[in-house]
Amino acid sequence: MVQKRVYNFSAGPAMLPEAVMKEAQRDLLDWQGRGVSVMEVSHRGDAFMAIAEAATQRCRELLSLPDNYHILFLHGGAQAEFAMIPMNLLAYQQAAAYVVNGVWGQLAAEEAERYATVHVISNTSSSQYKTLEPVEAWQPVPNTAGYIYYVDNETVNGVEYPAVPWFEQPPLDNLGERIPLVTDMSSNLLTRPFDVNQFGVIYACAQKNLGPAGVTLVIIRDDLLQREPMPWTPNVFQFRTQADKHSMQNTPPTFAWYMTGLVLNWVKAQGGVSVLAKKNAAKAKALYDYIDQSDFYINDVDPRYRSRMNVVFQLRNPKLEPLFLKSAEAAGLVGLKGHRSVGGIRASIYNAMPQAGIDALLNFMNEFAVKFAVKQCA
Amino acid sequence: MVQKRVYNFSAGPAMLPEAVMKEAQRDLLDWQGRGVSVMEVSHRGDAFMAIAEAATQRCRELLSLPDNYHILFLHGGAQAEFAMIPMNLLAYQQAAAYVVNGVWGQLAAEEAERYATVHVISNTSSSQYKTLEPVEAWQPVPNTAGYIYYVDNETVNGVEYPAVPWFEQPPLDNLGERIPLVTDMSSNLLTRPFDVNQFGVIYACAQKNLGPAGVTLVIIRDDLLQREPMPWTPNVFQFRTQADKHSMQNTPPTFAWYMTGLVLNWVKAQGGVSVLAKKNAAKAKALYDYIDQSDFYINDVDPRYRSRMNVVFQLRNPKLEPLFLKSAEAAGLVGLKGHRSVGGIRASIYNAMPQAGIDALLNFMNEFAVKFAVKQCA
Repeated sequence: MVQKRVYNFSAGPAMLPEAVMKEAQRDLLDWQGRGVSVMEVSHRGDAFMAIAEAATQRCRELLSLPDNYHILFLHGGAQAEFAMIPMNLLAYQQAAAYVVNGVWGQLAAEEAERYATVHVISNTSSSQYKTLEPVEAWQPVPNTAGYIYYVDNETVNGVEYPAVPWFEQPPLDNLGERIPLVTDMSSNLLTRPFDVNQFGVIYACAQKNLGPAGVTLVIIRDDLLQREPMPWTPNVFQFRTQADKHSMQNTPPTFAWYMTGLVLNWVKAQGGVSVLAKKNAAKAKALYDYIDQSDFYINDVDPRYRSRMNVVFQLRNPKLEPLFLKSAEAAGLVGLKGHRSVGGIRASIYNAMPQAGIDALLNFMNEFAVKFAVKQCA
Repeated sequence: MVQKRVYNFSAGPAMLPEAVMKEAQRDLLDWQGRGVSVMEVSHRGDAFMAIAEAATQRCRELLSLPDNYHILFLHGGAQAEFAMIPMNLLAYQQAAAYVVNGVWGQLAAEEAERYATVHVISNTSSSQYKTLEPVEAWQPVPNTAGYIYYVDNETVNGVEYPAVPWFEQPPLDNLGERIPLVTDMSSNLLTRPFDVNQFGVIYACAQKNLGPAGVTLVIIRDDLLQREPMPWTPNVFQFRTQADKHSMQNTPPTFAWYMTGLVLNWVKAQGGVSVLAKKNAAKAKALYDYIDQSDFYINDVDPRYRSRMNVVFQLRNPKLEPLFLKSAEAAGLVGLKGHRSVGGIRASIYNAMPQAGIDALLNFMNEFAVKFAVKQCA
């Protein structure tokens, strides 16, 4: 018997659009009528090269990417980028500025310390990462910094910049060059429109909004490809080498790349990023509004910086959380457990989560609250 | 209309067993009756952890792996290993010994030069890599070497060691420790039995005999995990970190890991590595025997070192090669084009290639030869 598809709130690997999964399933043994799977063909053959290029172009289109940016599809996941960013960008500088507004920013800054002097210009750990600092509150960026790094949405802590940081006065380095902004958009790329021109590098692992785990998108401004990588940078970690080789310095993760292409086509078919942004805002608002009026659930994240992607919350009676998770799973609502470092509940509601999933979660939360609020009174 | 599955001789990404592909297809939207795809679930959930562990155990069983070895499932492909090997193993040595018996050995040695002094102890480039040197012919290994590196099967050139190199007198380093042997078995792991105890590290990217591109198996002897990585080694590149974290320092390529597990189960169901080794030997012998008796096709690789996995050959009249490739494809025999660096024809016949595929190729080759031998005489 086939199980009905459930609503999957996993933070990542996360749910993929059902239409995409069905297309992948249909074509799994016989792709393009070739009698082979897309995962069985050479990455250097015309057929794969064509879908790789199409995925790149679709991504350019969806992001309105200016001509002076490259898109790379790389192995390694976001944590590989923690090392690749300093290795590739600190050509003539030995320092970098980091914003530490959550678990992922903290880990990225720690990895960068292997390669450079790290200046933390914003740190909200004293709030348990329940708020963010706007760009005006960041410490001055030292002019020795090769880049400024921040995470646009923090999945563990459920905080997100309401709009991408914008410097009124761009910080300059000691050669008079504008210091590039680097961002980890692993969890919110393609979930709202933004102006790419603000950035030197944008990267995102696929397994939230783009595809399955195993491929990472890197969007890089061409002038930064001129920077000399550190001498110990592995070939496959060199942005300029991968740009020269169209992300095929070695065999890329072909199936993950293909799946990402299908998801990008799905984004286009939905009406593009602007349409999804409106849906995402409505989905998040529905959950936060319900939680805020409830005396059963709590969300203690600064309302100005609540994530549209990862709604973290707790039950006022934390002893009920295991039962909440178990009951939710029985009701077809899976992946709601909070990150192991913070506990609680987390509903990750990326592009692929439909409004119907939000409605189902709200119904469940309400029924659970009514049931156990009554029991507690009895 | 569904295209009949073709015989796919691609060198990698390569064909996967049809039974594996069908299982993956059946379960793609509803894995284990969970109403989600395996590629949509958290790598830290019990369900994925169980299949990750099962794949590891199955691999241990198939390789008769001694207890003092770890298996890692890593991102990055084989070329990432070109850097990871020196980064992780040259703790107290600054040198390494490399055997350069083909394109992949050459690239690995070049990447290692970024990190260490490379001593090439065998180099067959003057033969255009058409032969190998047995271990007795290798140059003495300097006692400053942290390891000895060789490629067991070279896919581009079609050469393979008939048995894994075995030192009668193990080379010792300047601390009196036996220098570990490191091997790239990307193209022939699990295709014949061998004694793992000879090795310090064995690695293999998946896309030949193990699964789809995007995951790499690393088998490492536990004492080597004690070596301090070079200070600039990224977290995700550190063998000891990945061993501590069960290959989950970051989100692993979950779908590729799952597929590899299915392929490992298939290997077991075939009767294990010994049974496949016999089939592989027979498959290769049939092709080489036919080519050797032909005056239409040539294989000029030293017969002592011909690869069981990648049968490279040429047509005596190279002008016919494009037609050969086109006609083969029309006959349902795809992926036969030689590597772009050497040209010619290459039939990659890994574990998943059935004898029926060899028979079909032989029939086609014979018909093609008869047809064009006649035409040339007319």
